[in-house]
Amino acid sequence: MTDWKTEIAVAARRIGPHIVRTPVMTSDSLWAGGEIQLKLEQLQHTGSFKARGAFNNLLTRKVPESGIVAASGGNHGAAAAFAAQRLGMKARIFVPELAGPAKIALIRRTGADLEVCQGVYADALDAAMAHEKSSGAIQLHAYDAQETVVGQGTTFSEWDDQGLDADTVLIAVGGGGLIAGAMAWFGRDKKIVAVEPETAATLNSALASGPETEVEVSGIAANALGARKIGNICYGLAREARLQSVLVSDAAIADARDQLWTCHRMLVEPAGAAGLAALSSGAYAPEPEERVAVLVCGANPAPDPLS
Amino acid sequence: MTDWKTEIAVAARRIGPHIVRTPVMTSDSLWAGGEIQLKLEQLQHTGSFKARGAFNNLLTRKVPESGIVAASGGNHGAAAAFAAQRLGMKARIFVPELAGPAKIALIRRTGADLEVCQGVYADALDAAMAHEKSSGAIQLHAYDAQETVVGQGTTFSEWDDQGLDADTVLIAVGGGGLIAGAMAWFGRDKKIVAVEPETAATLNSALASGPETEVEVSGIAANALGARKIGNICYGLAREARLQSVLVSDAAIADARDQLWTCHRMLVEPAGAAGLAALSSGAYAPEPEERVAVLVCGANPAPDPLS
Repeated sequence: MTDWKTEIAVAARRIGPHIVRTPVMTSDSLWAGGEIQLKLEQLQHTGSFKARGAFNNLLTRKVPESGIVAASGGNHGAAAAFAAQRLGMKARIFVPELAGPAKIALIRRTGADLEVCQGVYADALDAAMAHEKSSGAIQLHAYDAQETVVGQGTTFSEWDDQGLDADTVLIAVGGGGLIAGAMAWFGRDKKIVAVEPETAATLNSALASGPETEVEVSGIAANALGARKIGNICYGLAREARLQSVLVSDAAIADARDQLWTCHRMLVEPAGAAGLAALSSGAYAPEPEERVAVLVCGANPAPDPLS
Repeated sequence: MTDWKTEIAVAARRIGPHIVRTPVMTSDSLWAGGEIQLKLEQLQHTGSFKARGAFNNLLTRKVPESGIVAASGGNHGAAAAFAAQRLGMKARIFVPELAGPAKIALIRRTGADLEVCQGVYADALDAAMAHEKSSGAIQLHAYDAQETVVGQGTTFSEWDDQGLDADTVLIAVGGGGLIAGAMAWFGRDKKIVAVEPETAATLNSALASGPETEVEVSGIAANALGARKIGNICYGLAREARLQSVLVSDAAIADARDQLWTCHRMLVEPAGAAGLAALSSGAYAPEPEERVAVLVCGANPAPDPLS
């Protein structure tokens, strides 16, 4: 059985020199209910937490001359490409058109070999698996590999080290790599609220109908949160965690994104605002004295404001 | 003689409940020369450090029924209006057209009584002084009042408290309220680099030609850094500080703004990137082992990315 806490603590030291120790802050203006603790993981290299898992993969596994391959809605691909560039490795990245020009530009800037595929994330993953077979490159799974989950888990060991003082942590869920890292680190110490768009209720559906459930995905956060099936690691950990699954509308996500900009000049992508949306929309309603924390997870919006 | 350090320490406790304790971080990707310590003051209420001085004025001075009045290129007005709203006071704000629609919208949102004046900041200041006389409202000066300088100084006492470990701090200069706060707090403990656009070299010109020197102002940071004459408090403190004045081009400022977005997803206004621009352009070239820190001071860009 995996000793997750030890794995995450070791990974935090391993990737520490390569990642941004992202800052934390407290806000009293984002939510009528009171103070929220925030970790600004959107300031991470390539604009999302994904850099953690990418570096942890590249620094743990043996990477052949042919390098690495990744399929992605955009953020994981950018992170994998960035990590490969920093470590002097080849990278080939497959994204669906849905990734959009801002995320595609972010990947191109690293010098990675990029292929934009027709279709959705699952089609990009098929193409990446074919490349893996033909080239010998190793695949970095966006969310369902232990190295990835352990890497994302360092977000939460770092937050604890920075003085996180919350009963409950709200986290956006796509394929489940980030929240798996949270469940792996916190165990049953904290309540974890899994926030998904109504238009991409992947974990929510799996919890109701079983781990093999596939959902249709759409909506404003689809390129970041639109996995059709939840990761096995996430599903396994969810059964042991103090987890509550909630859904938010696209309108609530857009409102929360606007609030982050209006109140604190954080310009995030829709997925990056989903955690806050659960509070501000009332989808998750804390008890009166409950101390809440929200992870701000990604900031690669479309269109890019400076392009 | 003012005991600046005590005044600032007292003000930090006074305004603490009302302001954002803005986070700090270290970046190794913004500048080829190495690590930079950053304080993200652009995440402050209304998107700039100005909220500190505004709250310190309102909580120190006796505010009459007729409220407060402020003239501003935009950021000080937004901060004054926000502080008045939070404390239940009336506010009348005068800005020049140059403030632009994003900053004007930020002020309108507070419910303040706003007047957009023909001309430049000096014209808005004339209108504010006339209103002060006729109404009895008290004026919050944007940079040349002790309460304002002491409030801005809390940025640096807070940064010290957060573990600032630098030899040199780079700060953008407009009328000089913020850098006066830095000189008041640090005394001769740190080297302070005053960064101004070539197109608004107010402090630079005053240091060369005397405190009454007036300059023409223009360029991309003019609405935030475009004071025509340096504040008397700033000028007085500058003579005792370990201060170096440098100038940066508008192109260097734009490049630094792009870097902050590209590397760390901080979307700032030009003034907010001026400190970094001095490093990345080479206008300020630290010694090999010199530890540098940059204050990111404002994030009310035009156009507003979500408007």
